[in-house]
Amino acid sequence: LLTLLGNYYIILSSCADVSLIFGVTGWFARPTTVNHGHASKSFLHDFLDEMQAENIKHHLRKFTRLPHLAGSQQNLDLAKQIRAEWMEFGLDSVELVPYDMLLSYPNKTNPNYISIVDHLGNEIFNTSLAEPVPEGYEDVTDIVPPYSAFSAKGQPEDELVYVNYGRTEDFFKLERELGINCSGKIVIARYGKIFRGNKVKNAMLAGAKGIVLFSDPADYCADGVEPYPDGWNLPGGGAQRGNVLNLNGAGDPLTPGYPAKEYTYRSSLEDAVGLPKIPVHPIGYHDAVHLLQHMGGPLPPDNWKGALNISYRIGPGFMDGLNQNKVRMNIHTNNQVTRIYNVIGWIRGAVEPDRYVILGGHRDAWVFGGIDPVSGAAVVHESVRAAGKLMKKGWRPRRTLIFASWDAEEFGLLGSTEWAEDHARVLQERAVAYINADSAIEGMYTLRVDCTPSLHTLVYDITKKVSSPEDGEEGMTLYQSWHKRDNSTERDAPWISKLGSGSDFEAYFIRLGIASGRARYTKNRKTEHYSSYPVYHSVYETYEIVERFYDPSFRRLEAVARVRGGLIFSLADSPVLPLDCVEYAMSLTKYANSIYQLALKHPAAMEQYSVSFDSLFSAVENFTVAARDFHQRLDQLDTSNALAVRMVNDQLMYLERAFTDPLGLPGRPFYRHIIFAPSSHNKYAGESFPGIYDALFDIENAVDPQKAWDEVKRQISIAAFTVNTAAETLRPVVS
Amino acid sequence: LLTLLGNYYIILSSCADVSLIFGVTGWFARPTTVNHGHASKSFLHDFLDEMQAENIKHHLRKFTRLPHLAGSQQNLDLAKQIRAEWMEFGLDSVELVPYDMLLSYPNKTNPNYISIVDHLGNEIFNTSLAEPVPEGYEDVTDIVPPYSAFSAKGQPEDELVYVNYGRTEDFFKLERELGINCSGKIVIARYGKIFRGNKVKNAMLAGAKGIVLFSDPADYCADGVEPYPDGWNLPGGGAQRGNVLNLNGAGDPLTPGYPAKEYTYRSSLEDAVGLPKIPVHPIGYHDAVHLLQHMGGPLPPDNWKGALNISYRIGPGFMDGLNQNKVRMNIHTNNQVTRIYNVIGWIRGAVEPDRYVILGGHRDAWVFGGIDPVSGAAVVHESVRAAGKLMKKGWRPRRTLIFASWDAEEFGLLGSTEWAEDHARVLQERAVAYINADSAIEGMYTLRVDCTPSLHTLVYDITKKVSSPEDGEEGMTLYQSWHKRDNSTERDAPWISKLGSGSDFEAYFIRLGIASGRARYTKNRKTEHYSSYPVYHSVYETYEIVERFYDPSFRRLEAVARVRGGLIFSLADSPVLPLDCVEYAMSLTKYANSIYQLALKHPAAMEQYSVSFDSLFSAVENFTVAARDFHQRLDQLDTSNALAVRMVNDQLMYLERAFTDPLGLPGRPFYRHIIFAPSSHNKYAGESFPGIYDALFDIENAVDPQKAWDEVKRQISIAAFTVNTAAETLRPVVS
Repeated sequence: LLTLLGNYYIILSSCADVSLIFGVTGWFARPTTVNHGHASKSFLHDFLDEMQAENIKHHLRKFTRLPHLAGSQQNLDLAKQIRAEWMEFGLDSVELVPYDMLLSYPNKTNPNYISIVDHLGNEIFNTSLAEPVPEGYEDVTDIVPPYSAFSAKGQPEDELVYVNYGRTEDFFKLERELGINCSGKIVIARYGKIFRGNKVKNAMLAGAKGIVLFSDPADYCADGVEPYPDGWNLPGGGAQRGNVLNLNGAGDPLTPGYPAKEYTYRSSLEDAVGLPKIPVHPIGYHDAVHLLQHMGGPLPPDNWKGALNISYRIGPGFMDGLNQNKVRMNIHTNNQVTRIYNVIGWIRGAVEPDRYVILGGHRDAWVFGGIDPVSGAAVVHESVRAAGKLMKKGWRPRRTLIFASWDAEEFGLLGSTEWAEDHARVLQERAVAYINADSAIEGMYTLRVDCTPSLHTLVYDITKKVSSPEDGEEGMTLYQSWHKRDNSTERDAPWISKLGSGSDFEAYFIRLGIASGRARYTKNRKTEHYSSYPVYHSVYETYEIVERFYDPSFRRLEAVARVRGGLIFSLADSPVLPLDCVEYAMSLTKYANSIYQLALKHPAAMEQYSVSFDSLFSAVENFTVAARDFHQRLDQLDTSNALAVRMVNDQLMYLERAFTDPLGLPGRPFYRHIIFAPSSHNKYAGESFPGIYDALFDIENAVDPQKAWDEVKRQISIAAFTVNTAAETLRPVVS
Repeated sequence: LLTLLGNYYIILSSCADVSLIFGVTGWFARPTTVNHGHASKSFLHDFLDEMQAENIKHHLRKFTRLPHLAGSQQNLDLAKQIRAEWMEFGLDSVELVPYDMLLSYPNKTNPNYISIVDHLGNEIFNTSLAEPVPEGYEDVTDIVPPYSAFSAKGQPEDELVYVNYGRTEDFFKLERELGINCSGKIVIARYGKIFRGNKVKNAMLAGAKGIVLFSDPADYCADGVEPYPDGWNLPGGGAQRGNVLNLNGAGDPLTPGYPAKEYTYRSSLEDAVGLPKIPVHPIGYHDAVHLLQHMGGPLPPDNWKGALNISYRIGPGFMDGLNQNKVRMNIHTNNQVTRIYNVIGWIRGAVEPDRYVILGGHRDAWVFGGIDPVSGAAVVHESVRAAGKLMKKGWRPRRTLIFASWDAEEFGLLGSTEWAEDHARVLQERAVAYINADSAIEGMYTLRVDCTPSLHTLVYDITKKVSSPEDGEEGMTLYQSWHKRDNSTERDAPWISKLGSGSDFEAYFIRLGIASGRARYTKNRKTEHYSSYPVYHSVYETYEIVERFYDPSFRRLEAVARVRGGLIFSLADSPVLPLDCVEYAMSLTKYANSIYQLALKHPAAMEQYSVSFDSLFSAVENFTVAARDFHQRLDQLDTSNALAVRMVNDQLMYLERAFTDPLGLPGRPFYRHIIFAPSSHNKYAGESFPGIYDALFDIENAVDPQKAWDEVKRQISIAAFTVNTAAETLRPVVS
């Protein structure tokens, strides 16, 4: 160890080029373009050009006329339509791949709602049973009302406690600072900040017997914007559907680890993964006012108050003060095993058919899916069309391209996870990269990319080949437009974030260790503070909201299509895989520093329990040297030697795999990536070195500090080993 | 499912060629030679010829002069010597790879022994502290006395209960049929039949507070053979050393899943994997007589009596009847973290350096290791010498060859497992096969091979190229000699068994899914019923016992060297990997039938709980078709196309990997192979479909039959999925 650290300093002091990447200056110094062999450049240009706004608009219009809820006939019909069109576009084969998984639907004859109940048991107020349907869709049937998928059934009745966003820190504050106990109560949390499933989990941990989720205007309305249809804000009658599972990557709750095929053993509902044990229900802010305005209890902290024009209280207290009114939840949602269908299309690789590049996004929508997912599915459709067009011109990618239209994403990333489980072996052997294609737009400001560090450079390369979609930026590249709007705080390049979860890349990246990325158009994260986009998962996600507000020219979607398409094209067609290991090294350095800083908040304990991060820093240094040396050797590669190219490509492909550990993270066996995992407190967010992070979390309140710090040390050791072993995969293949 | 079964019958009835392999007749019909591309044939011949009896004799003599206990200076010195000689032989590089792992040694100043104690507490009999040292070795120091490595410390004192072999079925019989409770007693078990660690585990489960292990002449003496030095039987003063862990593949007990490097986090001893919680000690039969002959208790079943000329009783009963004498164990063995050293040598592959073929065997011995392991290590040494000789003639293998001299095998396969953990990622990506080289001889009758089914054909091929070592069989091949002596009951070919555990292939095969095999010379398993070989793990395992009794001409060891060497040569040098997927299909068929027959012993429960094996049979059929089709495509392969060859080789290499499941077997996370695992009741034995087997085990006594049969169904489902997914890896790589 000392030797390694010794080398570290020797290198720092003797090689300016390397030392740069350890300081902040390094982030600015590094070029954002690296040449990795040569894809069929003219074909790349043709491919990008082939994807056109008008076509995407057409696809979006076509796919948003009807609801496409997972498990519905409409969504099967759409799958068949997509299969037919992909075949027509020219894919080599397209198949419908069914799985039978646990889904959850409201009981059609016994609707879900929340009541205020007086002391005689009379329901003196009931929340609405459905959202007002937007104009033009009045005749559509089968619009599922707002509900929390996989909610437990039940009719709990009790006092109501407001828990702000229902985050871990919110419950800590309630319990530890404000002395408010949620045990046995019904809690009400506002949507936003974290994944709703985490709110439900936190409520259960706090002992609540039910949880109501509502959309507060503070979180679902942008300033100065009208509610839909006059603007793109959430109307007061709108509410957010969504699943409330805590699957931690398990896929179908009844078949964790295995695909939900006909013959697959299914656990009982009692043993199912991630199902909430309490009733959950979502409401809009018009209804929420009624529940909140007459609550008892003390006033909440100022920053808990939201935007409703009432006094939030934090209870527990009876409704309407001395009237002793209570809240009753009436939840009759059913879990049922249901057949769903992925559509999988193939273009056989010309040179390395056994190397796969995947573009996948979901098809199922809560209702019309104007944004989520069809803005993304329309983009995939256009990519398939463009690829087919090129094939007719004689092009065929070097590697195999797989296009996926996933089902049941809204129910917990189920379709994509089951397919990953079904094909885990061949994917681990053969998959080069996975590019996700969920909603292509969630704002009107600029590009947003989350991806594995090895894709950073390719993302920058591709965005330099795409034009800015913004008015007044003619002649500017997307890269320039993006850079101008959202510069990284760490380097002179556009901001790229790490992957969290909440979409279909999860099983591919976090479980299988396949290099992954996603790109979409987004809001200004520095000035627009509402959560997600206002109409998220409501009936107001229509074609018109995109066409009228988000992207009237459809040039933003076109730009996203070209980014996603350019990524898969380059990954499939470049002789040498366009993955950048030095970027990974830089990110690891950053993450190691960051987790070390977090630990340093406990200097006394670090001392007392002899906690050292030396092994991790040493490993990151080993990785950095190995990555640099690897790319130096790559520069001298004889690209005419097919086996030599294959060997370095195997090293590049398997790098991401090397960061996974079959033992998984503590308590989360399907989260196997040691560098990245969804936060344990918010599935949407990515955490780096999650094992260490979770071990450090709230450690100052650990019951057994020795044991808690031992776990920190164990996690540091695992992280250091994993980074070292990843470094090994990049070294020359013979000792 | 019905469709698949439908296909099954269609194929059976329409294609005689395939249908054959489903019946017993198929086993006879299948040829034992398959041509898989062409290795450098003349070099193979040279390589086999280069390995010579006289050299092996020389290596054996040289390596057995001193004890080489793991963690000792002598064993480090030997590692350095081997490194130096391997470099001299011509390997490209040789390295010493250290790990710091938990080992266990007797306390030198406070020896272990067992006493008979009278009612006043006087020790009226003590077992011997050491074995009589064989002639010629009187001056050797550092002979570790017989002990049970990793025994708990302690001095339990109580009545003694004889538990026969200490097998699961023995304890069942005691508890269920004979009504004898071992709880709180000291038990005494004879060695043999199963791995000693399983005996200890069973004793702990039965509540015993200590266990004495002894060698009974019935199990450690062959008929008509004198004790060493006049013959090769175990003398009465000899005893069997050995570890008594239940690691289930974890490697170092303090660092399960991760290599025991300097920086690695180590668990506390309380949390260590597999350590027995009770004292354990081994004794010879001279001492055992004293403990057994005056035991109280009823007479045991006839087949429990062993060969000692006394009346075994099964207690609990005081020693010497009414005298109320007890047995006391005095155990002071210490666990301590100790540095060990693997020696790893490399020959860089000329064409595919990133494909590894490994020949590994251990170097550490309990004492001199005349048989275990040096008969094997001498063979590895000769293989390295022969490979170096060929390299000087201009040969270099197509793929990389790795030679390993493992340390601390005797302490739980530790050196090999830590190296496998250390390099798990690159091994999973790059390892083609692992050939094990423990003891090369355990009898004087014929060859014994245990290997993965895909190696069957290559084993037969190689043994046809090696001459019989038996006197009077000049001109006969080893294959013919072996075939004559040990024909399979299932086909007209020599008997090959499945792999169990108890040697260093475990982590490579069972955890990592690397095709593995082992070969050695053995006794006549039909007529020689003693366990292992009589002097196993005693001080009497000398050079002389091999030279005088087991292999005076050293031609048996030479034959084993040529088999092991021929395997790695062919695996490293054949353009197309010499692995046979159809053999795997045949074995899967056999195993599926076998486990189905086992389940059919419970027809009522099968009916009641709707247990079906259809999915498994269907999966095996899918695999069979995929394997046949794969080899048909292979016959048409353009072997001049380097990438095409690489792609089929990747399919062949990853086939074994496809049978592993990162979730592991229930309660045994490091046993990941779904088709093969060490038996849960005997680490030495291999179990096929172990998940199903264990779920069925003793199911008639399940507390909750519904739950137990649900687990059977779950395991059938996992097995079926795994076989299906392995079939997928053999299909054309694009859907």
